Amino acid sequence: MGVKICLTIAGSDCSGGAGIQADLKTFAAHGCYGASVITSVVAENTSKVISVYNVPADEVRKQIDAVFEDMRVDAVKLGMIPNVDVIEAVAERLKFYRPPFVVCDPVFEATSGGALSAEGATKAYEEHIFPVANLITPNIPEAEAFTGMNIESVSDMCAAAKWLCSMGAKAVLLKGGHLKSSEAEDVLFDGKETVLIKQKMINSQNTHGTGCTLSSAIAAGMAKGFTLKEAAISAKDYITKAIENSYVVGKGHSPVNHFYAYWDKL
Amino acid sequence: MGVKICLTIAGSDCSGGAGIQADLKTFAAHGCYGASVITSVVAENTSKVISVYNVPADEVRKQIDAVFEDMRVDAVKLGMIPNVDVIEAVAERLKFYRPPFVVCDPVFEATSGGALSAEGATKAYEEHIFPVANLITPNIPEAEAFTGMNIESVSDMCAAAKWLCSMGAKAVLLKGGHLKSSEAEDVLFDGKETVLIKQKMINSQNTHGTGCTLSSAIAAGMAKGFTLKEAAISAKDYITKAIENSYVVGKGHSPVNHFYAYWDKL
Repeated sequence: MGVKICLTIAGSDCSGGAGIQADLKTFAAHGCYGASVITSVVAENTSKVISVYNVPADEVRKQIDAVFEDMRVDAVKLGMIPNVDVIEAVAERLKFYRPPFVVCDPVFEATSGGALSAEGATKAYEEHIFPVANLITPNIPEAEAFTGMNIESVSDMCAAAKWLCSMGAKAVLLKGGHLKSSEAEDVLFDGKETVLIKQKMINSQNTHGTGCTLSSAIAAGMAKGFTLKEAAISAKDYITKAIENSYVVGKGHSPVNHFYAYWDKL
Repeated sequence: MGVKICLTIAGSDCSGGAGIQADLKTFAAHGCYGASVITSVVAENTSKVISVYNVPADEVRKQIDAVFEDMRVDAVKLGMIPNVDVIEAVAERLKFYRPPFVVCDPVFEATSGGALSAEGATKAYEEHIFPVANLITPNIPEAEAFTGMNIESVSDMCAAAKWLCSMGAKAVLLKGGHLKSSEAEDVLFDGKETVLIKQKMINSQNTHGTGCTLSSAIAAGMAKGFTLKEAAISAKDYITKAIENSYVVGKGHSPVNHFYAYWDKL
């Protein structure tokens, strides 16, 4: 019947806390059917990235076709896209299939090992991904790489979000987690209205996959018919509770608990 | 804390109904944390296999190391292993890490496109996988390929299960779905006792990923401390309800509904 379908296009994290694994868990926790196109097979865990094995652009394209030719996709989340070839392939296919909603969580930090360097990535994202994405969700270092700005406050974040829209992004959720603040404050700018989304900052080491999880929770909310503002607020609430209810899985930064709302009932 | 961790080592099904995607959904539905090592990136959907892009043995090995070096694994499920190199790598690493339980769902049917042919696979499974697996879960055509027997009845299934144990399997769950019968009857043989596990046969087109789902449900049950018999009975009950509560997702054989017990509560 009416189950909503979310697709993630991202890397695979074998340890299960980030990448398509985090996305599929998030979709499921929101009652959405999850599909997943893999752009890169990453050997990583909660402590480190060991190896990155990228999937060729043509195989990414075939996976995207396999999904869209077979099922109605209600929302798409883009995560790690390892190189410009794959960025172009993904953008071209999304332009062709025109899913109702696309959120892009840019991944090009040094910590992702093997992901695009910020220099190479920002230009390709701006040219190819901004036109097909309804929302981008950079953190502060990523927004700085895109804009060249130095972001040190919430008012800097608001300015950067506006700047990103002037560069072609349709809407921006700029995540404030890197500001040293007692509150976790994100800025949502949709080209017209600025919304500040606050939650208490959770003091936790269990933060592996938070970026992936937030953006897929937004995709799930949009698939279910929320407005962008509702989806962003609901996703922020979800990630906060998922961090709060997390447990230790690995030796490093453990993942969030995607199923906190369900597993209590077991 | 006490969350149980299950690892699947298998192929990726971008359409989300089989492979590591089905396994992760099954683990989650059983309250277990899921990790996933990818052996092959398959572009497929509910109707057809479009392309198979295998991951080299060395990258599979690195993913296995990434998981085991970081977390305690309570149960392992093996699905599609695309070639003898990867079979050897997986077996060698499992021999090294010695997880408490390993279930292997052999995948070498023609329908899996790009998986090992039955001829090449049976020998490699027998030599490398049987010694490290606590249970294998072939269907009838797979059991025929392993044993050379012609299986046409439940008593043939019992004989074949015993024969597989004499070939080195520690325990066998032989799935009877291919028998034309009004009941879905599986045979569990643990080297000593034969148990028949019956459920009503569900008349449904929504059977994509049933084999993956059954074996991962067994892994989850074992991780949670069930006996083998309890885990097999519980998994059969789960897959029956997941088929019964399935909905149409794609144009071909839709997947089962892994979250039937949760999504009602949304």
